[in-house]
Amino acid sequence: MTVSHEAVADGALRAAEDAFPIYGSAEPEARARLLEAIAEALLALGDDLLAIADGETGLGLPRLTGERMRTVNQLRLFAKVAREGSWVDARIDTALPTRVPPRTDLRRLLIPIGPVVVFAASNFPLAFSVAGGDTASALAAGNPVVLRGHPAHPETSARVAGAVATALKTCGLPAGVFTYVGGPGHAVGLALVRHALARAVAFTGSLAGGRALFDAAAARPEPIPVYAEMGSTNPVFILPAALAERGAALGTALADSATLGTGQFCTKPGLVFAVDGPGFPELAEALGARIATKAPARMLYPDLATRFRAGAAALATTEGVALLATGPEAAPASGVVPNVARSVAWQVDAATFSETPALREELFGPSTILVRVADVEGLRRAAAALDGQLTATVHATPAELDKARPLLAALARRVGRLVFGGVPTGVEVSSAMNHGGPYPASTDARTTSVGTAALLRFARPLCFQDADASVLPPELLDRNVRGVWRLVDDRFTRDDVPS
Amino acid sequence: MTVSHEAVADGALRAAEDAFPIYGSAEPEARARLLEAIAEALLALGDDLLAIADGETGLGLPRLTGERMRTVNQLRLFAKVAREGSWVDARIDTALPTRVPPRTDLRRLLIPIGPVVVFAASNFPLAFSVAGGDTASALAAGNPVVLRGHPAHPETSARVAGAVATALKTCGLPAGVFTYVGGPGHAVGLALVRHALARAVAFTGSLAGGRALFDAAAARPEPIPVYAEMGSTNPVFILPAALAERGAALGTALADSATLGTGQFCTKPGLVFAVDGPGFPELAEALGARIATKAPARMLYPDLATRFRAGAAALATTEGVALLATGPEAAPASGVVPNVARSVAWQVDAATFSETPALREELFGPSTILVRVADVEGLRRAAAALDGQLTATVHATPAELDKARPLLAALARRVGRLVFGGVPTGVEVSSAMNHGGPYPASTDARTTSVGTAALLRFARPLCFQDADASVLPPELLDRNVRGVWRLVDDRFTRDDVPS
Repeated sequence: MTVSHEAVADGALRAAEDAFPIYGSAEPEARARLLEAIAEALLALGDDLLAIADGETGLGLPRLTGERMRTVNQLRLFAKVAREGSWVDARIDTALPTRVPPRTDLRRLLIPIGPVVVFAASNFPLAFSVAGGDTASALAAGNPVVLRGHPAHPETSARVAGAVATALKTCGLPAGVFTYVGGPGHAVGLALVRHALARAVAFTGSLAGGRALFDAAAARPEPIPVYAEMGSTNPVFILPAALAERGAALGTALADSATLGTGQFCTKPGLVFAVDGPGFPELAEALGARIATKAPARMLYPDLATRFRAGAAALATTEGVALLATGPEAAPASGVVPNVARSVAWQVDAATFSETPALREELFGPSTILVRVADVEGLRRAAAALDGQLTATVHATPAELDKARPLLAALARRVGRLVFGGVPTGVEVSSAMNHGGPYPASTDARTTSVGTAALLRFARPLCFQDADASVLPPELLDRNVRGVWRLVDDRFTRDDVPS
Repeated sequence: MTVSHEAVADGALRAAEDAFPIYGSAEPEARARLLEAIAEALLALGDDLLAIADGETGLGLPRLTGERMRTVNQLRLFAKVAREGSWVDARIDTALPTRVPPRTDLRRLLIPIGPVVVFAASNFPLAFSVAGGDTASALAAGNPVVLRGHPAHPETSARVAGAVATALKTCGLPAGVFTYVGGPGHAVGLALVRHALARAVAFTGSLAGGRALFDAAAARPEPIPVYAEMGSTNPVFILPAALAERGAALGTALADSATLGTGQFCTKPGLVFAVDGPGFPELAEALGARIATKAPARMLYPDLATRFRAGAAALATTEGVALLATGPEAAPASGVVPNVARSVAWQVDAATFSETPALREELFGPSTILVRVADVEGLRRAAAALDGQLTATVHATPAELDKARPLLAALARRVGRLVFGGVPTGVEVSSAMNHGGPYPASTDARTTSVGTAALLRFARPLCFQDADASVLPPELLDRNVRGVWRLVDDRFTRDDVPS
């Protein structure tokens, strides 16, 4: 029997909707325990999971071991945030009966929204897949999740989905709190986004994919938010003194960052702008030399490698684009040649860059472009011409930071995270992280998809006016029974409301 | 010379963009002073302004005097919020160099986004028009505003726009921080929304108007958020014991609330659900009797009155809808007859209500519908069938609140504010207020258009990684120079970061 995509979507979202009254009103402790139980169940899958994931993605066991720990830590961090509880942003304005006109008692907090559709990413088969950051943040805020698995790692996904199901059972929560939707193709994902019961969508992937979901959600009779993180070129800007001081070291570090995980990070530095002058030759040489040492490596799935090779071929024939270096070719005997990508670095001058819009597009894979500009103002001009970005990185000595202010101002308009003196790869999961940015880096620059603030995507305010204590959520009672931070009569406090 | 709508939009948004580097990086104190200067300049227009507004809107001097004070207080409140500064939600994760892997220093805050397009509402010619809540909140967050005036009160708008211009001059800020766009028609508004430099849109008005702007913004090459507050029916639910206790008083109070300001509030109670039984006849009678006393009153502009009369005529011929009462007809001698509306109340049973989708639509003007349901479960069923709402109101005795839990759970999914024991009209401007709600009440249920949280609509996070103190915003320095509340290593504090 064939079940239609619409029927699959309907089953998943009805199960989520049915589970919402229970899960959405569960104690923070119950949500925290679920997240911790998922972490435990994930670990209990053992290293088999890593072997399966490696077989499906080619990311290698060291990386996947680290990613598993990151996934587990992320689940535990969101458990901590749910348990602590201040994220609900409780605000209490007490009644002012003698004011003219009188003020009524107003109390508001953030509440969960209902079923969230999460699309797994291909490039983090654990940390941004079935039990990844989007799932953890949606669950932490009290929402059931319908998870659209990425077809590139089906067995890994099925195993982790099994772990989540086990955790729900352990916690005595309805199975509908989490539904895994596998299989190939785009149709079922669109059916999920279009389903009337879906309340929000989270996605990590390509611009084309994210925009398609955004458009489908905006065209609904009742539009819903889409949080699509769609990658970027993560430009790097190197000022003259920093370049003179450590051009060679920067070339090496940037080559490593651009090829880390076969260049399959949303934060891969795909553009490096440096001022011609002392240190520039050393930068270019070290970047090229390091790229030349990178062994050919497997990409996540054949389509990605095909697209990467096509992109590289297009660059190779673009006027003004010079090949700086490539890594060695894959041995023809290798069984995985169809997936394999050669690392590559390119060089262009500022004029070519500004006249060639294609150079501003992300090329997913182990490639980076070095752009030679004339001066610091050239860096600013290049920054001002860029689209929205997840990150930008600036290398400057403390003494020349002052000169960089116009550049920094231009970047602040365009990016979600400004990195100083490092590389953009490596995204900490913490309270101050922001992983998002103006379009096309994401469809919603107000939000982050990494870090504790990610759960704010899946909540909305509800205000109670003159409500009896018997119907108020615990966070809004006079007595601060949950010990959360609250804004009481415009003062942040953990105190009770004075009676 | 005729200037095209596109040229008008382009001029306004370029001026805003040019002013943004200055205003967006201005000290909180400078933004606060601007808001206070606007309040002063508004008051300095004197009572002439009220006379003009009354002539254009017919709202009457008492209401407009109160609305002016509300507008002034709102500007001063946002000045206070800007000056206090904690709204930037500063978060600092200090470096953990010895952790494996090391954690870099991460600091994030909310920053302004750039030019905001604000559409004035017709029904608050001061408080939600030129210098109203959307303008105040966008300016408080550091954004230039392009204000699309409502054609129904052009002279009021021009005067207030003049006051804002005066305030900008007084404060030594660029004129481009605020640009007023007058004139009739929809085309210039759409041109503003479609302009590449627009970063967000705020709107208060009809569902058709809000959705058109939302669709235009979503279809842009680079989509931008639209915060459209589009009104609702603001259903009222009366439980049996409350009804038996005060049926007549509720009828009178609801008639007053439904006809306040000629029924031209977003929070007008347009639907009243009550359980048949003791108190119901008294409710119906008092509601009808009070409606019958309401003098015919002018609506804001002729189109509104025409639409209201057409809506009332449609209800009058809808099967199962009984006329409960109308107010007196306007004297034919009155010069403003084309704008005049008669108050009206209707009654239907639950079956008719559930079978007649048109009854769930907002009818803007002095009309309300009493729905007789069989029991408390009937209230819940009616609630569960409703679209998103700004508010819902519940009347219940403390003893019967427990019985109301399923009803309250259904309403919590659908509304932005739950009112107990009162009427939905009257929207406090404070920290805990929420004026928004699931679609079609608004296009973005995550946000409020009234109250201090409104400024969060016009900000987004920016994260600094390993930044030198010389380039950090003051709110992110180790020393808490602005004295704001910050989350430092996951602890809320106003302390400095320990060195």
